[in-house]
Amino acid sequence: MIIVMKPGIPAEEELRVKSLMEGKGFQIHESRGANFTLFGVVGDTAAFDMNQLRVYDCIDKVMRVQEPYKRANRMFHPEDSIVDVCGVKVGGKQITVMAGPCSVETREQIIGVAEDVKQMGAAILRGGAFKPRTSPYSFQGLQETGLDLLKEAKAVTGLPIITEIMSADKIERFVEDVDVIQVGARNMQNFELLKELGKTDKPILLKRGLSATIEEWLMSAEYIMAGGNDNVILCERGIRTFENYTRNTLDLSAIPAVKKLSHLPVVVDPSHAAGMWWMVEPLAKAAVAVGADGLIIEVHNDPEHALCDGAQSLKPERFGRLMQDLKIIAGAVGREL
Amino acid sequence: MIIVMKPGIPAEEELRVKSLMEGKGFQIHESRGANFTLFGVVGDTAAFDMNQLRVYDCIDKVMRVQEPYKRANRMFHPEDSIVDVCGVKVGGKQITVMAGPCSVETREQIIGVAEDVKQMGAAILRGGAFKPRTSPYSFQGLQETGLDLLKEAKAVTGLPIITEIMSADKIERFVEDVDVIQVGARNMQNFELLKELGKTDKPILLKRGLSATIEEWLMSAEYIMAGGNDNVILCERGIRTFENYTRNTLDLSAIPAVKKLSHLPVVVDPSHAAGMWWMVEPLAKAAVAVGADGLIIEVHNDPEHALCDGAQSLKPERFGRLMQDLKIIAGAVGREL
Amino acid sequence: MIIVMKPGIPAEEELRVKSLMEGKGFQIHESRGANFTLFGVVGDTAAFDMNQLRVYDCIDKVMRVQEPYKRANRMFHPEDSIVDVCGVKVGGKQITVMAGPCSVETREQIIGVAEDVKQMGAAILRGGAFKPRTSPYSFQGLQETGLDLLKEAKAVTGLPIITEIMSADKIERFVEDVDVIQVGARNMQNFELLKELGKTDKPILLKRGLSATIEEWLMSAEYIMAGGNDNVILCERGIRTFENYTRNTLDLSAIPAVKKLSHLPVVVDPSHAAGMWWMVEPLAKAAVAVGADGLIIEVHNDPEHALCDGAQSLKPERFGRLMQDLKIIAGAVGREL
Amino acid sequence: MIIVMKPGIPAEEELRVKSLMEGKGFQIHESRGANFTLFGVVGDTAAFDMNQLRVYDCIDKVMRVQEPYKRANRMFHPEDSIVDVCGVKVGGKQITVMAGPCSVETREQIIGVAEDVKQMGAAILRGGAFKPRTSPYSFQGLQETGLDLLKEAKAVTGLPIITEIMSADKIERFVEDVDVIQVGARNMQNFELLKELGKTDKPILLKRGLSATIEEWLMSAEYIMAGGNDNVILCERGIRTFENYTRNTLDLSAIPAVKKLSHLPVVVDPSHAAGMWWMVEPLAKAAVAVGADGLIIEVHNDPEHALCDGAQSLKPERFGRLMQDLKIIAGAVGREL
Repeated sequence: MIIVMKPGIPAEEELRVKSLMEGKGFQIHESRGANFTLFGVVGDTAAFDMNQLRVYDCIDKVMRVQEPYKRANRMFHPEDSIVDVCGVKVGGKQITVMAGPCSVETREQIIGVAEDVKQMGAAILRGGAFKPRTSPYSFQGLQETGLDLLKEAKAVTGLPIITEIMSADKIERFVEDVDVIQVGARNMQNFELLKELGKTDKPILLKRGLSATIEEWLMSAEYIMAGGNDNVILCERGIRTFENYTRNTLDLSAIPAVKKLSHLPVVVDPSHAAGMWWMVEPLAKAAVAVGADGLIIEVHNDPEHALCDGAQSLKPERFGRLMQDLKIIAGAVGREL
Repeated sequence: MIIVMKPGIPAEEELRVKSLMEGKGFQIHESRGANFTLFGVVGDTAAFDMNQLRVYDCIDKVMRVQEPYKRANRMFHPEDSIVDVCGVKVGGKQITVMAGPCSVETREQIIGVAEDVKQMGAAILRGGAFKPRTSPYSFQGLQETGLDLLKEAKAVTGLPIITEIMSADKIERFVEDVDVIQVGARNMQNFELLKELGKTDKPILLKRGLSATIEEWLMSAEYIMAGGNDNVILCERGIRTFENYTRNTLDLSAIPAVKKLSHLPVVVDPSHAAGMWWMVEPLAKAAVAVGADGLIIEVHNDPEHALCDGAQSLKPERFGRLMQDLKIIAGAVGREL
Repeated sequence: MIIVMKPGIPAEEELRVKSLMEGKGFQIHESRGANFTLFGVVGDTAAFDMNQLRVYDCIDKVMRVQEPYKRANRMFHPEDSIVDVCGVKVGGKQITVMAGPCSVETREQIIGVAEDVKQMGAAILRGGAFKPRTSPYSFQGLQETGLDLLKEAKAVTGLPIITEIMSADKIERFVEDVDVIQVGARNMQNFELLKELGKTDKPILLKRGLSATIEEWLMSAEYIMAGGNDNVILCERGIRTFENYTRNTLDLSAIPAVKKLSHLPVVVDPSHAAGMWWMVEPLAKAAVAVGADGLIIEVHNDPEHALCDGAQSLKPERFGRLMQDLKIIAGAVGREL
Repeated sequence: MIIVMKPGIPAEEELRVKSLMEGKGFQIHESRGANFTLFGVVGDTAAFDMNQLRVYDCIDKVMRVQEPYKRANRMFHPEDSIVDVCGVKVGGKQITVMAGPCSVETREQIIGVAEDVKQMGAAILRGGAFKPRTSPYSFQGLQETGLDLLKEAKAVTGLPIITEIMSADKIERFVEDVDVIQVGARNMQNFELLKELGKTDKPILLKRGLSATIEEWLMSAEYIMAGGNDNVILCERGIRTFENYTRNTLDLSAIPAVKKLSHLPVVVDPSHAAGMWWMVEPLAKAAVAVGADGLIIEVHNDPEHALCDGAQSLKPERFGRLMQDLKIIAGAVGREL
């Protein structure tokens, strides 16, 4: 951490800041320039809230040198992490595709789609039971019944299942019946939920918040990991910008960035980012090309009658063709699919 | 709602869309231009999820005419709503100031600050017990003890108290002991929490999310109101932009916008938006000038030793002087303080 | 265009709006709902400034149905446009790579890099002569001398050259000596410059502005095309968001979006978007996978001593290896490179 | 400037970086922590392009301590600057109001509005002659004739005039006939134009770009000042965010920020930010309350027939009433109007 003192500060003010920091066990290295004096603060500053220093009038700026996350930080864990989902590895050489409908609607629908996507190469079945909807008047998902149907689809196809959790009081049921617990973008900073998920050992898919920086996203992963659960899969799903032709702006540069900063696997959700099915295919290809460890794609056998987000769902045939194309791109970047 | 058909669509495709909508009880008015055919959809479309239509390849665009919120909509409730907090009215001619420390720290601190801000004209005491922090390693608030201390401060000063809730399992305690329940920016779309708060009749202060549009913010209010609780106070606290000199960009134009679109009272939090105490004063003045119904301001008697956000806290003396200046501005815009 | 009238508007106000529009030669189709009356406006509304209607108090909203651009609009020009640069086709099956240093620095540097990138498959040589720099104290490019050196490099290698123009008074020189004239992001809405470029018949590479919507970008292309110059190549180079780990956020979803909305070719600049050389490779691959018609990549033979943006430049060897990988990805999406 | 070296860098790499910087005349102060080594760089780093260092693989981060602008920096010019516009002082105790139509349309219009706004207290007349329009098909202003009419309006009323320049080839005419030359948001980084304006001694009103940071805005001021022209007035006019109810998001916190960082006067344009006349009044009041040195407001005597931006124009009567309210708010913040 670096403390930049304002110019012309009396010596006693400087001393006050220095003693404060030394009192907390840090060492101070000084660097005096024409206009500014810098204090390099040496020691474990990750747990120190540097905002506390901003209160001092004699301080111009406080700058952090080290990232505030530890367990999620590649510096302290140089090898890639691999998360095991009932034998499916997320994060290794293999690219993992999760596919299925936005919402679980009926037994026929979810089992039908599950069989289709399995045959086409998906390794995990997705499907929403509890749906976060902007409007209280929209369909909110089949809820508990949806979980039951997902369980049946798993029994029939053998595919592990991923579905979204929306409140901590459901954790017990999710731990029992679900293979990957998804935390949606809107709950990325629902810290109470993250803390509770940190107490389980289930794989967690943590979506990036609509306006979360990469650092905040990794800090949310850190919340789960600080509780003892290292099975975190990150998921980029688009950020909010001024552009409104697309629902969100898929930030594919976040993939190499996260790979540099962290050891956690990172997958991409092209369906929610674009909001339009015809854009899912090129974005899925780009996601594999840029280095994602997996994809989560909406597939529906009857998008016109989907209860939710039909417009961004692929039909199974298109999904099948896409999988073929993705294999070639995976090969071109040294991966398998 | 308006459906814009793509050019050159065969008649049977048009018919399919028309019958679909008529089957849902809507009337269709056609308008045929050189390049586009429009279907004006007449009926109560608020509960209809227009994304469903995006799945049809023959449709170019779907555009909403009416806002998707009803209970929060000024169209159906032309007079300003006033929320009563233990006799303090939020939303009328009077401007309400809520003040207090970021975090409750000790009995002396919270009672001392409460007495100071009461004397200077604050009508409600703020203080954080449960603190949403970006880092799991930061101080997370005194939690239950914090609530106890706030209750004591209320007993001593008579000021109603506002504090933030972070999870639905604490609602019972909050309903019992707190006068305004604050929903933080990060929980603005924690829909499960909003639904539970909708079942109470407590005043709720709903902060705008970091990247929430005004419409999404009002839809979150709608979640609470749809459950039967109309006591919603909105709070603008800055949005995220590319500018990083300030912590957030306080969107003061949101105040007249919300006043136009909704009947709910709206207050401003200049402390969190700016993140720097010296900016709180001009922003508070601007908030009153722009038409806010109140302010929520951080005041600490010893910012240098605050456990949280000391840098954005005013000392009581500055707060007192600010209150004097605000009175004059309130007068200039036809309000009282 | 659709005009939404406010509820409860007296008939004479409605008539006033209708006669206004009819007076301008438009036809009006009415659609009356419970809360709103809609006027569908039929006729060529592209040249009509719909903001003019916002002044009427009786109007709630004005919504456009048709895009405001015509010459750049795929609706009126369904086939892909191909821009010919001295025989190099930009926009067809072939993916075009433009490569070279950020700035032209010396004869040896520009000719050396030109020979390298030519050998590795680049089709066009890039190099900055006039440099837009945020600081007036930074190196501003070799200017006229830079153009001379580019011309020499072209003479030696036969590669057509692309370089950025910064003011209209240099157009004559650029038309004489340059093969593609680049308009930088900061000049995307320098309308006077665009108008002048519209009077030439040179290929123009139009970078997207830092916060330009896709529509505004296409409207800037329209400025050039309205003047009679259809040789416009679009270039996505990252937009500004709250994320600051990357210099800009490369918006790869803009590629399929632009391909849907317009017939113009679109290329990607991964170097400026990322600002870090190690991110250029994955982003370049993703750009090809997502459907870009070309790439513009910074290559420098001695990045450590580059006068500008060395950190985002690839060394020739890396560029050569990248070209090999890109060939495979191009094949997987039905393109050639 | 601070250079943060990556962990575990061999001593010879460190030496290379140190010698490089010492070779440029800087002094290096080291600070060695457990994970990082810092080099504090002492000397005049403002003219050094720190991006150059990002090319070194052994460097983790480079952080600037001092702002990159000098002439615009309050550190080197602690007193407020006051710009003299034909005797009207912009930047002192007095708040300056500039008012007039978006576009100059006719002699009657501009002289009529000029007389109205003068009588109501405006000190400078605004009016667009050259209009930057998103569409090439929109009205582009009366151009040279517009300048002639502004000159007449000045002759009749004695009000100094401000109008926007769009290209460097018109500077001579502007210097001759205009009192304040406005640089629009879209030209904020048209560096060639800024350089030419730096060679004049005319007051320049520099609007903030749509997505410009405060630092970039001050760097654009620095471009003008570096050429020798210190008469720069800054103008906040709203930034682009995801919110689209308002045309732009007026960033009023930029006013106290700019006042802290720079000595230049700063005014606010509430008309362009909001895009709706009914929002201009509250935003104008907030701008005065937050500490702006002036306002630039659109006033039109017949908004319904305005050729441009009528929807955001105030009628003279409303403008007159607003001026009365602003006087009281000015008084409350220690200013005069």
